[in-house]
Amino acid sequence: MFISKLTIIGVGLIGGSFARALRHAGLVGKVTGCGRDVANLETALALGIIDDYSVDVAEAVRDADLVVVAVPLMAMGKIFAAMRPALAPHALITDVGSVKACVIEAARENLAEHFPRFVAGHPIAGAEKTGAAASFTELFHQRRIVLTPTAETDKQALHQVSEYWLKTGANVIEMSAEQHDLILAATSHLPHVLAFTVVNTLAGMQTEEDVFQFAAGGFRDFSRIASSDPQMWHDICLSNPQAILSIIESFEQHLHQLRDAVIQKDSHRLLALLRHAKTLRDKFVG
Amino acid sequence: MFISKLTIIGVGLIGGSFARALRHAGLVGKVTGCGRDVANLETALALGIIDDYSVDVAEAVRDADLVVVAVPLMAMGKIFAAMRPALAPHALITDVGSVKACVIEAARENLAEHFPRFVAGHPIAGAEKTGAAASFTELFHQRRIVLTPTAETDKQALHQVSEYWLKTGANVIEMSAEQHDLILAATSHLPHVLAFTVVNTLAGMQTEEDVFQFAAGGFRDFSRIASSDPQMWHDICLSNPQAILSIIESFEQHLHQLRDAVIQKDSHRLLALLRHAKTLRDKFVG
Repeated sequence: MFISKLTIIGVGLIGGSFARALRHAGLVGKVTGCGRDVANLETALALGIIDDYSVDVAEAVRDADLVVVAVPLMAMGKIFAAMRPALAPHALITDVGSVKACVIEAARENLAEHFPRFVAGHPIAGAEKTGAAASFTELFHQRRIVLTPTAETDKQALHQVSEYWLKTGANVIEMSAEQHDLILAATSHLPHVLAFTVVNTLAGMQTEEDVFQFAAGGFRDFSRIASSDPQMWHDICLSNPQAILSIIESFEQHLHQLRDAVIQKDSHRLLALLRHAKTLRDKFVG
Repeated sequence: MFISKLTIIGVGLIGGSFARALRHAGLVGKVTGCGRDVANLETALALGIIDDYSVDVAEAVRDADLVVVAVPLMAMGKIFAAMRPALAPHALITDVGSVKACVIEAARENLAEHFPRFVAGHPIAGAEKTGAAASFTELFHQRRIVLTPTAETDKQALHQVSEYWLKTGANVIEMSAEQHDLILAATSHLPHVLAFTVVNTLAGMQTEEDVFQFAAGGFRDFSRIASSDPQMWHDICLSNPQAILSIIESFEQHLHQLRDAVIQKDSHRLLALLRHAKTLRDKFVG
């Protein structure tokens, strides 16, 4: 259970908070950081999140008991490839990517013989800030962590990674990568796509500045997620295209139901659609 | 300037707060409430928001210097018709409806000779609570009130109504009803339509309950406006159909740009669309 050496690749909000939480739980000996941004690694060092660091992935993971990969989705493959030759035979590997099927594919291909000890994960704990300085011990308290094991995943590895997440204060849920990617496409990726698109729609109007003057109140909350990191959302869109395109299509069908009720002045139908939405939101989201 | 008798038709959050604010400013003698919900009128009476009430519109507006109509959009026409025979020749009339062109049409038709003293208005001060009990003196502080006079509107009536709104602490803006309805369609009506539709889209998935379990964080803010009053939004959709259908069409064009970038794996285009949205939101909404 005790981790003599923990390696965090990508010491940002998520990676940094994971290291803090496990250290706080007394489960970690040494924490080694790895990343491309040396200034961020120096910050992590100064804050005591990590004990040392390397910009070389193979060097960073050598002798590690647990490696956490917290890098952008599209960088996962080459990180896995770079660590493979240096991984200890017993090393556990996990990640925190927002899309899971594509990460599992990248891991299967690039971790090869280490793939059974790779446990794909996604902490549903976004926050607007980024970087090691934004990390904190309690980030995962009461948050959901989804683990998406495959048929090849070693049961003991899954159990161990699950235990570590529980020690951060999180609730661990298991499901298939496909199920995860579908649910997240609906509850996270679709709302982000719509929020980005609403802002672009308003920007396309002739009276852009006038329009944004009135974009207060409900609009502020509604569009907050359009201030998220474009590069991260670019990666998510291109990493989960099938589920995202499918949910966009379904969304448009529902939008057309409402639109057609307006066109046809179908008062009864329109009210039913709006009531259904309000009832469900009040019931499930609160 | 002093209002010997103020009549509020619909003593809810907006109507009640207007009465409280003008009374607080020392501008009002007697406040008469009017509405269909007697329990709400009794609450308003007990809270000192109104001094008396009547469920009869004509009786309520008799001898009033200012009449504020704060009823659902689709009830405006018959309220105007009911008050017409009882209005004093000098009476000012204003409303607080979320759509303006349709209210102006209803007023022109039903207020007839009183129409020049009707000043259409919309306080951009929504809140989730409703009813007299939710009203408060400061609701309009620093909020925008849009007045949409017509060519027939009496200049002195416009000036007076504008002064009253200023006394509530609001900022008064004038524009045409058409401009108002277009801007609100984009910044308020479209986001509401999308939020209602997202919830209905998630509800249409096979794993409805699973899905809503993950509908936290960003989704909670994004979809909050889907908890708004369905009847009110039904009225808004059917009262501003042209602008709403037009902005839905524009939204879909922008959505298809993003969707097509995903389909074509056009990384450069996708990133540009997301960056554009983030930049504008950060700049204009904050």
